[in-house]
Amino acid sequence: MNLQDTFLYTEIHQQPGVIGSLLADGRGPIEELAARIKKDSIHHIVVAARGTSDNAGRYAQYLLGLENQILVTLTTPSLFSVYQQPPDLKGSLVLGISQSGQSPDLVAVLTEARRQGVPTAAITNCPDSAMAETSDHVIPLMAGVETAVAATKTYTAQLTALAALSAILRQDDERLEQLAGVPDAIRAIFEREENIARLAERFRYMQRCVVIGRGLNYATAFELSIKMKELTYTMVEPYSSADFLHGPIAVIDPGFPAFVVAPSGKLLSENKDFIRQLKELRAEVVVISDDPEAIRLGTNALPLPVPLPEPISPIAAIVPGQVFSMYLAHTRGIDVDHPRGLHKVTETL
Amino acid sequence: MNLQDTFLYTEIHQQPGVIGSLLADGRGPIEELAARIKKDSIHHIVVAARGTSDNAGRYAQYLLGLENQILVTLTTPSLFSVYQQPPDLKGSLVLGISQSGQSPDLVAVLTEARRQGVPTAAITNCPDSAMAETSDHVIPLMAGVETAVAATKTYTAQLTALAALSAILRQDDERLEQLAGVPDAIRAIFEREENIARLAERFRYMQRCVVIGRGLNYATAFELSIKMKELTYTMVEPYSSADFLHGPIAVIDPGFPAFVVAPSGKLLSENKDFIRQLKELRAEVVVISDDPEAIRLGTNALPLPVPLPEPISPIAAIVPGQVFSMYLAHTRGIDVDHPRGLHKVTETL
Repeated sequence: MNLQDTFLYTEIHQQPGVIGSLLADGRGPIEELAARIKKDSIHHIVVAARGTSDNAGRYAQYLLGLENQILVTLTTPSLFSVYQQPPDLKGSLVLGISQSGQSPDLVAVLTEARRQGVPTAAITNCPDSAMAETSDHVIPLMAGVETAVAATKTYTAQLTALAALSAILRQDDERLEQLAGVPDAIRAIFEREENIARLAERFRYMQRCVVIGRGLNYATAFELSIKMKELTYTMVEPYSSADFLHGPIAVIDPGFPAFVVAPSGKLLSENKDFIRQLKELRAEVVVISDDPEAIRLGTNALPLPVPLPEPISPIAAIVPGQVFSMYLAHTRGIDVDHPRGLHKVTETL
Repeated sequence: MNLQDTFLYTEIHQQPGVIGSLLADGRGPIEELAARIKKDSIHHIVVAARGTSDNAGRYAQYLLGLENQILVTLTTPSLFSVYQQPPDLKGSLVLGISQSGQSPDLVAVLTEARRQGVPTAAITNCPDSAMAETSDHVIPLMAGVETAVAATKTYTAQLTALAALSAILRQDDERLEQLAGVPDAIRAIFEREENIARLAERFRYMQRCVVIGRGLNYATAFELSIKMKELTYTMVEPYSSADFLHGPIAVIDPGFPAFVVAPSGKLLSENKDFIRQLKELRAEVVVISDDPEAIRLGTNALPLPVPLPEPISPIAAIVPGQVFSMYLAHTRGIDVDHPRGLHKVTETL
């Protein structure tokens, strides 16, 4: 099958449009949720999510912490579902994040939150799902049906909704304007898609690698890792650079591939030092960055042609990795819409 | 060098003694912390930890949630250190967990907690460390100096301190008695050490594997993964079985090694189903369990000879994995006390 005819290819390329529409037409429910957070003086949000959506939760943990002083807990759904002994949620708002809104363990978290009388919200592509029905506030992603098993457009839409929520809470109009520039930043990545396809060839026989990010782009490292695993069956491990130094750096031997997410921002100089350390161990370092020096330090790059402010950089920084994973899968002869062993909706208890 | 003469071997075998002493002589500070949690009506604990100690935090998240209805947040130290824009900690108690108590990013979390006026506590093997000095309550692990780079006895001591805290908060004397049985449960593992050494031979050329656990033993899966990586340079990924079904199951092909932590408890029957699913994909499944049927379902086992109640099972369930990782490293000719690329104290900013 022609790659251009796959759902995955189509959905990846729909991202600028989806983000644009969400920002233009989807702000109402986000504004209502922001108003509720202010009215109830919420300073603690408990996120219930799994898989790719959990990476959106990870982004929320940094973004809302940094920009809104809101403490974000990534909760453990099994306390609510399998064990049925949930913790006390007093003082928090519980936020479900899920493409389908269907997984019973996530619905169990929202049901319990409601029972305890704390406010609830859902960010989902399916506003008539069980999760949405259990939530006081529903933020629809309006991304259109996502058919490919590997989530792409719903992930960047989830990040966009969170970034808009953060900006609206701060009444930060400048940030909202910067957000409006994200679709063009992603289009600029697609303009260089041929280079990404060529780079993927080099990794045809890669069996394992690590993906490293820290801070706001810790989520990007996790999400790139899950995309590469789902699509290419590579053994991929995501790490914070700080945790990586605490032990796992032992796995690096010459030629070991490391993807480092290092866009401009507070962590750039630390990330550059980290790239230098990896290069000293003779690792093969693929740098995901808009910074020319960071790119020069690596072996290869997945460039981000348009720089974005660090707090919203994760929305675009994942895209070259999505494209890379798609081409890597394709070059390995894998059906990118139906990787083995996976279903679109996984219902875990 | 003779394996029996290494620090790692010695420290692994000190664990029954360390846990026994901590329970016998270390309860005072734990009781004081429990009294503070009650007095201040704390229902939310924010944990600051990295590496192995972060896995103790993961255990706390399940244990204190299940048994004490306390919500546990694993925090993101970089918000406090690199970004210097910490979230609002109101209503929480901040708990640092660290062998050395030295990492600047963790100290930054406790310093900020103190600045915000919330109660602080530290679980550490170094009660005169910077982290301890910044904490209202210090729980010393009294594990003796840990010299091997791979932490073993301080990890099980951290879990023991948390389990004792949970039991004391509940005034659960039965649980405290059960805890007193943990040293013997660990000794029973050492009695079968030769079998573990023999099993390690089989994995001499294993390059990658996954370690799977859920609920209370999610922490065990993470910790076994970090031990195997530090000591044997294998590419290891930890997963919750629920998350694994959401995507990464695609990496399983025939012969792929999966270590499944499946002790008796609420998740046992789910874990058995999961082992069956893995076997259908013709994975090689190593089962860590006290349950004869679960063991029979797998390809091989790291047995837990003495069953423990699920909430305290993680203290013993990691031990066969520590022993396995040590023998696997040894059979690969690795110096188990000084794996390459690692230092005992990692100072991250």
